[in-house]
Amino acid sequence: MNIALLGHGVVGRGVDEIIASRVNDVHVTRILELPDRLSDPRMTASFDDILNDESIELVIECMGGLEPAHTFIMAALGAGKAVVTSNKAVVAAYFQEFAAQAQKTGAALLIEASCGGGIPWIASIEKVRRIDSVSAFSGIMNGTTNYLVDTMRKTGKDFDVVLAEAQALGYAERDPSDDIDGVDVKNKTIIAASVAFNVACRYDIPVAGIRNLTKADMQMFASKGRVVKLIGHGVQRDGHYAAAVEPVALPQSSLEAHVPANFNMVTLEGSTVGILKFYGQGAGSLPTGNAMVQDVLDFKAGRRPVYDFSANLVYDPMLLVSNYVFRTAIAPEGSERYAEGSWLVRSVTASHAREIYAYALESDPTSFYARLPWED
Amino acid sequence: MNIALLGHGVVGRGVDEIIASRVNDVHVTRILELPDRLSDPRMTASFDDILNDESIELVIECMGGLEPAHTFIMAALGAGKAVVTSNKAVVAAYFQEFAAQAQKTGAALLIEASCGGGIPWIASIEKVRRIDSVSAFSGIMNGTTNYLVDTMRKTGKDFDVVLAEAQALGYAERDPSDDIDGVDVKNKTIIAASVAFNVACRYDIPVAGIRNLTKADMQMFASKGRVVKLIGHGVQRDGHYAAAVEPVALPQSSLEAHVPANFNMVTLEGSTVGILKFYGQGAGSLPTGNAMVQDVLDFKAGRRPVYDFSANLVYDPMLLVSNYVFRTAIAPEGSERYAEGSWLVRSVTASHAREIYAYALESDPTSFYARLPWED
Repeated sequence: MNIALLGHGVVGRGVDEIIASRVNDVHVTRILELPDRLSDPRMTASFDDILNDESIELVIECMGGLEPAHTFIMAALGAGKAVVTSNKAVVAAYFQEFAAQAQKTGAALLIEASCGGGIPWIASIEKVRRIDSVSAFSGIMNGTTNYLVDTMRKTGKDFDVVLAEAQALGYAERDPSDDIDGVDVKNKTIIAASVAFNVACRYDIPVAGIRNLTKADMQMFASKGRVVKLIGHGVQRDGHYAAAVEPVALPQSSLEAHVPANFNMVTLEGSTVGILKFYGQGAGSLPTGNAMVQDVLDFKAGRRPVYDFSANLVYDPMLLVSNYVFRTAIAPEGSERYAEGSWLVRSVTASHAREIYAYALESDPTSFYARLPWED
Repeated sequence: MNIALLGHGVVGRGVDEIIASRVNDVHVTRILELPDRLSDPRMTASFDDILNDESIELVIECMGGLEPAHTFIMAALGAGKAVVTSNKAVVAAYFQEFAAQAQKTGAALLIEASCGGGIPWIASIEKVRRIDSVSAFSGIMNGTTNYLVDTMRKTGKDFDVVLAEAQALGYAERDPSDDIDGVDVKNKTIIAASVAFNVACRYDIPVAGIRNLTKADMQMFASKGRVVKLIGHGVQRDGHYAAAVEPVALPQSSLEAHVPANFNMVTLEGSTVGILKFYGQGAGSLPTGNAMVQDVLDFKAGRRPVYDFSANLVYDPMLLVSNYVFRTAIAPEGSERYAEGSWLVRSVTASHAREIYAYALESDPTSFYARLPWED
């Protein structure tokens, strides 16, 4: 089988290397690259060279970003070529459009690498859904922020110090906003909700990150037996669904509290299988490349995921209600004292908590908040 | 597709229920049961009724035990019928014979439910192996013993008290030997090693259980920041392999230390994907039934696992070397003091540690021991 790579950066080279060294009968015959980077005879700067090459059955998109990735994926699916992508931003933004295009032409769309890196997360959700309905999912879906909070916890250093170290080591981007503000987790949460609940998940779910998390916050929560992690989660019940991304102060007895370094851990709940958790490298060229090559091999073995989003679920914020803690200068309305300078607000939705947080940021731009799940 | 169930106990009824309520196009048309239990028109006491029924493509064996399960599986595979089984004892004992029979007739053998209950463990190992070689696996593979040690840790009660409670609740068998002596984990470890390393794993690997674990042992290890769990593990390197089942005193910072109740957690290490962990219900009629129905659906979708055990690996105990702690009346030769009444033996193989333990049991039948992995 002949395939093409769109992009030959860190992930693209990982895919190229894995296929060349470990997979028979799959050949990377064309690679799309920028005009000034054509260092390999397979490379071209023209996407049409790939689109019009009928020997190419499958296109691996690992360019990232919305455009031209969106246009290229639509064109490839339109031409009946299978598409494998690790691009969570473009899938979260255009999942419905891609899925409709794939259904129209019968081309396959495979997105394992867009969520959870090397963890077989999307394929596992789809497998569980063959038998069970998935009632909920949640997890640590971003390695950079887990590295930051885990290092803060273990070293007692403050956020900025650990972030600067992570940037020096290449664990965090020069502009870390997408990671620390929860944008990356938002994209993954939207994709996971769409696959798990068979719904075109709305794009404007409540999202908060960990930019304002301090050493003092970590210590305050530690004194309560809790560890802060950035969590994406979703739930469906009785024709309704909801999803959110927010810092969560987990009990130290939970497995997630102990996920180290840049690892991810995701959980789903099925009717007969019960709770399943998956743990692994959420990023990195080889784990992500591995996930893309698994999609290629699944396609070769006949797997054709169907995303028709036909479950007519209604978004309902009331499905996500919990207690929240706000560390902010002025006590939010209706709150009670949780710790010095921190306030507990009971039984509010994730959406309402995000609104309280936005309001708190206006008077105190250093404010932080976290959901407080029940002790298990 | 028409299928037959061999056995209609807890797991068989779970499979029957899941297929009837959640799966289209698969029909349980015959059920093998004892002559005095034929309560359903599909039931027969004669295996030949199933074997000679050409409309039955697949047989689900959930009788347990070695015979007649072994004979029935060989006959079904011999007749070209696919076999799905949750019977770890029979697979561990006859894996090579079953695999050869399946290869001879082209019939499929699917064994997901034999290891890890509802966790997609065997299918995940096979999936990882499409790309990676698996260098090691390990994990908590027995829900009963995890329930016992987790309850001992949380309540401070002694082994016998917790075991009696677990028996009253149905979490432990009336004769709990297979669980607490490590036999169940041994079978799962042999199966996992065979699939992960593509070798017919030897049957006489070192095995020890937790029968002699006391409240005082738990407290002693807790004072060292450790938690005892019963672990099965295997490793391969440079044409050699080894596997063992033994109590392990894990650092409290490890994920496995926090696995609650009767859950399982298994880990594998692949060359490109890195470390993957899977967590879920290791037993129970619905999770195990779910795993068997997943095998049926995989078969329907064209999955045909091949177990040819062609990796000519040599068993080498030297691949598993660690420190061990023995709580026993007389200090083992070459040991040093670890705690009051406990002795540390450094850098011995799992096999040698098991021999030291057997020797210790002769002078002190209450002796206990555990591997002491490095702090992470």
